[in-house]
Amino acid sequence: MSTIYIKGVTLGKEIKDILIEGNKIAAIEDKLDSIPDNCRTIDGTSKAVFPGFVNMHTHSAMTLTRGYKEDTSLQEWLQEIWKVEAKMDEEAIYWGTKLACLEMIKTGTTSFYDQYWMIDSAVKAVEEMGIRGWHACVALNLKDESRSQAIKEEIIAAYERSQKWNERCRMSVGVHAPYTVSDELIQWCSSFAREKGLTVHIHMSETEQENIDSQNLNGCSPFEHLERLGVLGPEVIAAHCVWLSENDINIMAKYGVTAVHNINSNLKLASGSRFLYNELRDKGVRVCLGTDGCGSSNNLDMRETMKTAALLQKGWRRDPSAFKLQELMQAATASGAEALGLDAGELAVGKLADLILVDTDNYAFVPQLDLVSNFVYSANSSCVDTVICNGEIVMENRVVPDEKEILENARRICNKLYNN
Amino acid sequence: MSTIYIKGVTLGKEIKDILIEGNKIAAIEDKLDSIPDNCRTIDGTSKAVFPGFVNMHTHSAMTLTRGYKEDTSLQEWLQEIWKVEAKMDEEAIYWGTKLACLEMIKTGTTSFYDQYWMIDSAVKAVEEMGIRGWHACVALNLKDESRSQAIKEEIIAAYERSQKWNERCRMSVGVHAPYTVSDELIQWCSSFAREKGLTVHIHMSETEQENIDSQNLNGCSPFEHLERLGVLGPEVIAAHCVWLSENDINIMAKYGVTAVHNINSNLKLASGSRFLYNELRDKGVRVCLGTDGCGSSNNLDMRETMKTAALLQKGWRRDPSAFKLQELMQAATASGAEALGLDAGELAVGKLADLILVDTDNYAFVPQLDLVSNFVYSANSSCVDTVICNGEIVMENRVVPDEKEILENARRICNKLYNN
Repeated sequence: MSTIYIKGVTLGKEIKDILIEGNKIAAIEDKLDSIPDNCRTIDGTSKAVFPGFVNMHTHSAMTLTRGYKEDTSLQEWLQEIWKVEAKMDEEAIYWGTKLACLEMIKTGTTSFYDQYWMIDSAVKAVEEMGIRGWHACVALNLKDESRSQAIKEEIIAAYERSQKWNERCRMSVGVHAPYTVSDELIQWCSSFAREKGLTVHIHMSETEQENIDSQNLNGCSPFEHLERLGVLGPEVIAAHCVWLSENDINIMAKYGVTAVHNINSNLKLASGSRFLYNELRDKGVRVCLGTDGCGSSNNLDMRETMKTAALLQKGWRRDPSAFKLQELMQAATASGAEALGLDAGELAVGKLADLILVDTDNYAFVPQLDLVSNFVYSANSSCVDTVICNGEIVMENRVVPDEKEILENARRICNKLYNN
Repeated sequence: MSTIYIKGVTLGKEIKDILIEGNKIAAIEDKLDSIPDNCRTIDGTSKAVFPGFVNMHTHSAMTLTRGYKEDTSLQEWLQEIWKVEAKMDEEAIYWGTKLACLEMIKTGTTSFYDQYWMIDSAVKAVEEMGIRGWHACVALNLKDESRSQAIKEEIIAAYERSQKWNERCRMSVGVHAPYTVSDELIQWCSSFAREKGLTVHIHMSETEQENIDSQNLNGCSPFEHLERLGVLGPEVIAAHCVWLSENDINIMAKYGVTAVHNINSNLKLASGSRFLYNELRDKGVRVCLGTDGCGSSNNLDMRETMKTAALLQKGWRRDPSAFKLQELMQAATASGAEALGLDAGELAVGKLADLILVDTDNYAFVPQLDLVSNFVYSANSSCVDTVICNGEIVMENRVVPDEKEILENARRICNKLYNN
């Protein structure tokens, strides 16, 4: 069992000693009385500790499509992205996910919720990189029932294989969206997830058009439709939720559905800019933050996402007190952990040791009047110095062991994707 | 005369050698035939070159108010900020401006347009830091004419002193805003600036309320009012311009007024989120970008500002092709230089050597399908590796010589401001 002693680190407004034993936080004290022998010591001087971020929506291997076809219309962009994705094989998924994990570690994320293809290659990458991945095996039959059987078999097989994954990786069921998956398959996915105790990840009400289409097809909104199908519950984690009616929010609250807000993606793809944070919060709906994939939002930087999310709430509501820093930090850490059933996301004794150390000895932390403000509003994510996940150091002094190899292989794969 | 040879650096889609002689770009070639003796050589491998950013609106010493009183209402925040500002002396302005320059250098800005008090202390800081500052000496009489004479004398005296400033620092006339400065003083400032060939920096139509107040007081918008006063011209650089009518835009176009868009500040203070970029551009109004001061926007990071500005245009217009990368880069560099009459802002032979080298050997530049996209949308500003201004290296390998001293003194000053 490894032991890590973080000596004299800034936690909020105080200086604390933190002891990590095994994969958990064993002690947080002003001054630890005794330090176990042979423990690894990290000097916390000029460093602040935060929970690791929980990125609640991404498509990690899409990092390989970063920056492709900028400034084009959504339909044109999608057509081009799909052509590239069609060329991605298991090797591409593996190195694309490694590249994504590298970026997430460098920017302070310790857990992420992924929805992409060939999840075993993604899991292999995550297992090696040392952070936590929830991997939604995607159901997408384009409402063609003849495709459903193979999809169900794949999900069942993935579940069987997932029993042997590292404890940091978890299987989830991905329903792409109500407009791309048949009702029958959605219901099967829901039943399977409930039977096995898995979360369900689904894209919901991302664009205004999909709500209009849902009204035309089903006579109700996507959330109302899922309610009729009987598939809503606390296991459902809904990405985007940009276009919500008051009744949609009531439904989400009633069934304990979690909302994942992906502001950069919603803005960049022009899906919508007025996320109903206050309304969801006030009805008791859990709101988390995500980056979406690099195809649409270009990076996996949760700190940047926090800033944009807060600025947009303040901006469109014309209220500078909207989305306060404490709520923002909770949405980026504890709320995600809670939605995933992960005993992390906050710094307390007994919690899993998923945490980051931020270097405060730089211009962005002068003056240091409000530490969270410095981190979220003034700094960029290069201040993330050390990342610990499940009690293991995955980055120290900004060094991730395999960085060079990952960049080289990701470049090699991209060369194949774009030059052939 | 110093000579710098940048060997094999990425410029757009090509690899180039760049020669800087004195303060200008002397050559940009595929391969330079002969390198002058005794020149300083910079290896351009895994680096991309961009023009230095031109931050067209800030209050640099307000960096000392970074993070103060977050998430409060605008009026409450202003009351608190004013109390702190009242305590700032020449020493605070000096170190606050140094801290601001440090941050601007670290994030790739080589020129900035400042509007703040005690400009001689700010100029001293900028002269020492090696970048360029346009310093608007502020006129603000709260419409009390009894204050005007002293303000005029101060502006005249500052102009006399400015004749001895380093060539990188320029005097400008600052008119705080039409709602805080009397018509008579605005007209005097305009005449003085025209007589001396100076630019005029003014806050315009930042909030909806100031437009309503202008209608009540003058029966017209702030821009219509300035037109009646006869003070609009190509020397006028107007910060914010959030609330513009079609007629306001026509007026700006008619007189060649420059607009400075400060998206992060406008969102954070909840002033407004729908800047009329397309409408201004289509009428031929020059649009530049600025960060505003750290009191309202928390950092001076132009790259971040570019990203937020583009995301917001795409988002509120529901058009993913809005504010294209090339226009964004122009607004952050060449347009600002042009407005200030500075022969920089682009990479071409004969231009002033104000440029930055960006490290591309990291995750944010993999894949590298669109270099500007990588820099603006994927990276954070820690990729800025080397900054050259006026032909002199002000940062190399992210090292700014006086960094430690600046942080220490800024902390010391803040301790006095907030703990006494």
